[in-house]
Amino acid sequence: MSKVRVSNFSISADGYGAGPRQSLDSPLGVGGEALHGWFVRTRTFKRLLGGGDAGETGPEDEIAARALQNVGAVIMGRNMFGPVRGPWPDDRWRGWWGNSPPFHAPVFVLTHHARASIAMEGGTTFHFVTDGVEAAFARARSAAADKDVHVAGGVSVVRQLLAARLVDAMHVAVSPVLLGSGEALFAGIDLPALGYAIASHVATPHATHYFFQASRS
Amino acid sequence: MSKVRVSNFSISADGYGAGPRQSLDSPLGVGGEALHGWFVRTRTFKRLLGGGDAGETGPEDEIAARALQNVGAVIMGRNMFGPVRGPWPDDRWRGWWGNSPPFHAPVFVLTHHARASIAMEGGTTFHFVTDGVEAAFARARSAAADKDVHVAGGVSVVRQLLAARLVDAMHVAVSPVLLGSGEALFAGIDLPALGYAIASHVATPHATHYFFQASRS
Repeated sequence: MSKVRVSNFSISADGYGAGPRQSLDSPLGVGGEALHGWFVRTRTFKRLLGGGDAGETGPEDEIAARALQNVGAVIMGRNMFGPVRGPWPDDRWRGWWGNSPPFHAPVFVLTHHARASIAMEGGTTFHFVTDGVEAAFARARSAAADKDVHVAGGVSVVRQLLAARLVDAMHVAVSPVLLGSGEALFAGIDLPALGYAIASHVATPHATHYFFQASRS
Repeated sequence: MSKVRVSNFSISADGYGAGPRQSLDSPLGVGGEALHGWFVRTRTFKRLLGGGDAGETGPEDEIAARALQNVGAVIMGRNMFGPVRGPWPDDRWRGWWGNSPPFHAPVFVLTHHARASIAMEGGTTFHFVTDGVEAAFARARSAAADKDVHVAGGVSVVRQLLAARLVDAMHVAVSPVLLGSGEALFAGIDLPALGYAIASHVATPHATHYFFQASRS
């Protein structure tokens, strides 16, 4: 059955999913790249970049690969899509990922500012959703059909979906780094009260991976 | 050289160092005992209870034992000392730990309400400090002499000492449980800005242990 999944979502040991002061030079905020140290060393990540058999295999690579399987649609926040804030000044910004983004599926970008859809190479189409997280959820669910909806981030979108009890499963990787400020994933979100529990966890030298399940799913 | 150390300090995966609604029946707040699953299974903990050779050895036991070595004084918050709030109604409450508490050193309890010191069996004396965290720090440091000051908790005291840059080293154990609400250890505390970094970490099936160092120490 189709699930709504947060996967490969990395936070710091002090709880932040992105560093402060995102910009064109710091897509993940200052210091944010360090969150993904566990991921960028995997074969799964290297293959996304066309790296063939480079990268590490093992439990962390399996975790990374699983997140990318059976994805029929993606939800992301506007700050994950790009550094532009406020109304779109023009149609030039087309995401961080070049002409062929690694999603290969419809991507629903939550924003307050309408914009025409953008069809990219490789099966990715960016759609811009201005009527809220439940609308993005409904459109992604419909587009995904039997496949899963992958919630890519950032923190704000994940928190909105958790609070609306729309997430079936969540994988959070905690990296052994500190960011000090930024967007805190868990602050003010009472996960047990929302029906979520930690079903399992896997620790490696690079990160501790928690797998959350909603009790209704 | 004498150090001020936070040790064996357990938090949940969502960042809380104690559960909500502390009471006589729930010294660590509702659900708080689950934070210490890694600790109560160690031989070090069993020996605190007079358990001889019971309990597990291994890296987690070594971590637990190290925290208890070379301790010359202890700082704790009033909520860790007991469930009584506001002015002390009488002198009956003498801590959670019976007649012979496991500290074997002077313990400085931060409170807004003055009270006479209490000498317990086994070398523990509770002193009540009403003039703030820096005063408790100074008195504990003086009492510890060449030994270390152990900061026992709770969250509020640890946060105050971190913010005042008075902690030299901190060990935080993150347990794979969720509390959902309570006291968040890291919220609003910018550890890198205060000079703290993660020097090392150790993950076991029971917890992920982070060892923080102040760059000045």
